[in-house]
Amino acid sequence: MPHIALPPNVPGIGGAFAFRPETARPMRELAHVLLFEPGGEASLSSRDRELIASYVSSRNNCYFCQTSHGAAAASHAGGSAELVAAVWQDPETAEISPKLKALLAIAGQVQGDAKGVSEAHIEAARLQGATDLEIHDTVLIAAAFCMYNRYVDGLGTWQPRDEDMYRAMGKQLAEQGYARR
Amino acid sequence: MPHIALPPNVPGIGGAFAFRPETARPMRELAHVLLFEPGGEASLSSRDRELIASYVSSRNNCYFCQTSHGAAAASHAGGSAELVAAVWQDPETAEISPKLKALLAIAGQVQGDAKGVSEAHIEAARLQGATDLEIHDTVLIAAAFCMYNRYVDGLGTWQPRDEDMYRAMGKQLAEQGYARR
Repeated sequence: MPHIALPPNVPGIGGAFAFRPETARPMRELAHVLLFEPGGEASLSSRDRELIASYVSSRNNCYFCQTSHGAAAASHAGGSAELVAAVWQDPETAEISPKLKALLAIAGQVQGDAKGVSEAHIEAARLQGATDLEIHDTVLIAAAFCMYNRYVDGLGTWQPRDEDMYRAMGKQLAEQGYARR
Repeated sequence: MPHIALPPNVPGIGGAFAFRPETARPMRELAHVLLFEPGGEASLSSRDRELIASYVSSRNNCYFCQTSHGAAAASHAGGSAELVAAVWQDPETAEISPKLKALLAIAGQVQGDAKGVSEAHIEAARLQGATDLEIHDTVLIAAAFCMYNRYVDGLGTWQPRDEDMYRAMGKQLAEQGYARR
């Protein structure tokens, strides 16, 4: 049960957003830019950015964010539920590019202890072709999900176990993004 | 040295904001609403909200955020550098209200393991008069600084040791907020 009076029957972060629209607006906008908006040729695909979000959420053990952003990653071109599950289990053995593996290693470090991001992490990503913008966005996606995850769990939001609901949510996120939901 | 090509001589999060204005905009807006805008009678003073931000940053060992938001808290009415240092050391023995002590305990829990926020934490805050909005904002400030702190440290931003600079920055933040900087 939520710790404060959130609107009933609104899962996850949606209930918290409805409680405080003033903070919801920039939080939605940040997700929209980071995960949905085309970043140009120097940036990652939405599938890859959603994979980073879902992976960080899995490490923070946030069921709602892990599942919804996993579903969004699966809905994007080149995504699937199997690929998402493989990234949760171990990015090193998942069928993703060496560049994304190196970026997920940076994301995992930011989630744990951000000060531990080293020149070796960065060099490994650059060797696989990562740009400054991709490294920036990886760090910020990982940092931002350390916020969203804590917000969802720290308020004790309702996180139903309903695979169809998350699949529908992921499809909508992949098609429409976050800004105007 | 920063891990990517951030503009030189811009301390802390400012360099990261200059690198990626599209994400800076909602991140500044979120800080402005959470820390600066008057929240009405059911909400915390800016001094108290800045104290929560600085306390969480101290627990995340993020020098730039701890120091700048500590300086902002000290600049607000009822703030001082001594009070800020006492909160960093131990909120329980600092000269702050029992309500703020209970909220800082929630903030500390969100920083560590947000799932561990318990009914006992919430009840203790309510007994001291905390509203739902105050509990919400405490959780979100703590969560948001787990983002800002990781962003600042994960990119290896420049964090000069210069007390006068932080005092000036804190004064400006306390007077003008975050939205249009």
